[in-house]
Amino acid sequence: METSINEFYSKTKEILANSIMDLKQFCALPSISAQKKMIPETVSIVEKMVNDLGGNITILDEFGGNPIVFAFFEAGPNGNKEKTILFYNHYDVQPPEPLDEWDTPPFELTEIDGKLFARGAADNKGDLIARFSAIKVLIEMFGELPCNLKFIIEGEEEIGSPTLPLYIEKYKELLKADACIWEHADRDAEDRVNLLAGVKGMAYFELTCESADMDLHSKHGAVVENAAWRLTHALASMKNDKNEILVEGFYNQVLPPTELEVEYTEKIPFDEQSMKELFGLKHPLSTTAKGRDPREATVFDPTMTICGFESGYYGEGSKTIIPKRALAKLDCRLVPEQDPYFIQECIENHLKLHGYTDIKVKMLNGVKAYRSNLADPFVSLMVRTAEDVYGTEVVLSPNNAGTGPMSDFGNLLNIPIVSTGVGWASSRLHAPNESIRSKDFEEGIVHIAHLISEFAKS
Amino acid sequence: METSINEFYSKTKEILANSIMDLKQFCALPSISAQKKMIPETVSIVEKMVNDLGGNITILDEFGGNPIVFAFFEAGPNGNKEKTILFYNHYDVQPPEPLDEWDTPPFELTEIDGKLFARGAADNKGDLIARFSAIKVLIEMFGELPCNLKFIIEGEEEIGSPTLPLYIEKYKELLKADACIWEHADRDAEDRVNLLAGVKGMAYFELTCESADMDLHSKHGAVVENAAWRLTHALASMKNDKNEILVEGFYNQVLPPTELEVEYTEKIPFDEQSMKELFGLKHPLSTTAKGRDPREATVFDPTMTICGFESGYYGEGSKTIIPKRALAKLDCRLVPEQDPYFIQECIENHLKLHGYTDIKVKMLNGVKAYRSNLADPFVSLMVRTAEDVYGTEVVLSPNNAGTGPMSDFGNLLNIPIVSTGVGWASSRLHAPNESIRSKDFEEGIVHIAHLISEFAKS
Repeated sequence: METSINEFYSKTKEILANSIMDLKQFCALPSISAQKKMIPETVSIVEKMVNDLGGNITILDEFGGNPIVFAFFEAGPNGNKEKTILFYNHYDVQPPEPLDEWDTPPFELTEIDGKLFARGAADNKGDLIARFSAIKVLIEMFGELPCNLKFIIEGEEEIGSPTLPLYIEKYKELLKADACIWEHADRDAEDRVNLLAGVKGMAYFELTCESADMDLHSKHGAVVENAAWRLTHALASMKNDKNEILVEGFYNQVLPPTELEVEYTEKIPFDEQSMKELFGLKHPLSTTAKGRDPREATVFDPTMTICGFESGYYGEGSKTIIPKRALAKLDCRLVPEQDPYFIQECIENHLKLHGYTDIKVKMLNGVKAYRSNLADPFVSLMVRTAEDVYGTEVVLSPNNAGTGPMSDFGNLLNIPIVSTGVGWASSRLHAPNESIRSKDFEEGIVHIAHLISEFAKS
Repeated sequence: METSINEFYSKTKEILANSIMDLKQFCALPSISAQKKMIPETVSIVEKMVNDLGGNITILDEFGGNPIVFAFFEAGPNGNKEKTILFYNHYDVQPPEPLDEWDTPPFELTEIDGKLFARGAADNKGDLIARFSAIKVLIEMFGELPCNLKFIIEGEEEIGSPTLPLYIEKYKELLKADACIWEHADRDAEDRVNLLAGVKGMAYFELTCESADMDLHSKHGAVVENAAWRLTHALASMKNDKNEILVEGFYNQVLPPTELEVEYTEKIPFDEQSMKELFGLKHPLSTTAKGRDPREATVFDPTMTICGFESGYYGEGSKTIIPKRALAKLDCRLVPEQDPYFIQECIENHLKLHGYTDIKVKMLNGVKAYRSNLADPFVSLMVRTAEDVYGTEVVLSPNNAGTGPMSDFGNLLNIPIVSTGVGWASSRLHAPNESIRSKDFEEGIVHIAHLISEFAKS
């Protein structure tokens, strides 16, 4: 295996200049989905690259929005036609603004000190070109692909993938695969390779309470209800000061983590002191009190966060009023099997039970969590092949503590999904001076080639 | 007594045109303390009026600020020199803006349909001229005053009486009296005459909590403390949803109301339904649940009101953050014997006891309550003489639910204080088209003449 990795490296070095040229051409197109810019031109270049590698294209565009490019590369005669990997990537990018903060032209890939700067270099054009380059490496080395590959390359990821779920639902059969490699991942500040096998879900609510038609003189405080107090009491009844959620039924759908999930989670690096310093935390971690491992809490515990609270007067000095209205924004991060609509029901029911029937609960965002089955051999294969190639610490989180489109994807296709990619800790996604490191790009090609090769044998 | 009231009315009618001329002259001076306008001119006109009535003037101005006019009218040879009434009034007014909302020139007293319009007509020049006119009535009728009268007429009431307490403290002996008539009162919407014998105190706080140097991604919600949650829990621990304050020691200094105080309070008109309609209340009164009479709650219960709460993001849509900071404004209305600094200690101690040592408590305003001794004969005399003169329902509240400078005054001089005056329900104090009704002005003169006369005999 050492040998084959070395061979992948040699072949990658041969094609690297061309791959970077491809990336340069790709990044030259400002395919900004928010502005519907250069979309047909970008779809054409993706089509051309797929054709050049011998893949078949299907353009999916019947639900409106920017077209999705579906590409299929069939395993060669000596390959394993029973095995298929699906890649999820996107060809659209964020706007480049503010332009004056770029040190190089945003749509002209520029190499400086081993780094490649351009909008989209990291998110997500560099990853897509690295995957295509891995296909080239395999074909040039073996004359064929060792298993089937599918690509779904969308053009609206940066505006929230509004139509993607419709396509996935409709084309479930077309997209059928044994596993999925997610668009992108970054190395962390310690240069560890991070892989993610899931995301938390989200149920984001706006809670509003009204007590009167107008703000009242606070001299009426002995007899008149106060929207700010009502919402304060209602919220305090929903979570205690030990970070335990008290909403009846909130934890009902939570699956206890498997041994394997705990095992992966315990290996996640966690440095409480540097987290405290980075964020300037004023208090001990709120799980420490009950002895919960903060890594396990981060991965496995659903949360309930007040993101905002507004009521009455909060300017300089004093104003003596009873506020007529109070508003809170509440973000619940969900774990696998929790349903955002069920969570809404639980909260509404809790408020009723506690006498707050008047508090309105409006869901602003609802999405389920997704966690790959870590026992699927693909997951350990991803870790092993990354360790083979990178020769550095590889950390797999069962799921991110954040939320993302992986959940729609995972819940519809129900296959293991792991993210990997060519980013580094300062890739500056969505910001000026976005970049990848040439070395990561090269290693990313080798990793994907090695992974495909090993997956075909598995 | 009927006879003497009728005689007071006759005499008042004789001098009324002159009194209104005096008021017109007085209101012509825009003595706006906020702008330090026309202060010496206004002091001069007050001095001249006192001199014309045979009073002695002392100007108090050694602590800076606008001069205070102290006037002394001695009881005549046949009068009761053992008895003294102190009047508190002020010669300064609010600015007239917005000028385009006035239907008449603000500094030109204009009579329309039995109403006298001008800035200061109600607050507080009309009351002062009515008191001076009552002196004139008594002197013209009896050739002398039946008891001693003292006036303290300040020039900074509209900017919060910043130096008044210093003068009162220093001139306690000079101001010595048996009772005090407070600057002003209005009839209510039902034309009932309202008298006030006290005010609630106030302890107004700003509570702030910090959890980090920056707002954090809400994915950290499983492990990181959240300023908004901390403040929510801290506040919920301070008062329950039954309007009962849970801060240890908060009620310690509260005196139970006397039978007489309860008796007066039970006579205060209270119409829950019209209050609900006026304010558009969405909930039952918050004391009803435990069967407390809302009038008693309003007069006797100290309060704790959230006047404002701010934390994190509360604009359109969702923002997924853990707020670094939360702020609440908290207004406690106090009852007699409660000390605002002790209340601050109680709150700080409560927060410590409950683990919120980090929450900062800053007092923005601290003033004690004042409630006259209702058993003092002066209080019932005020009610009885008002009933004699007005022939309408007279309501005396042991104290207002609001707060005002009466508390400084009362606590320093420790004499019964009752407010009465010539305002009506639409006097529009501090607003454009401020007015009094000529009829109320006339009756106000008669009431003060009758009161002085009866007080001298008591």
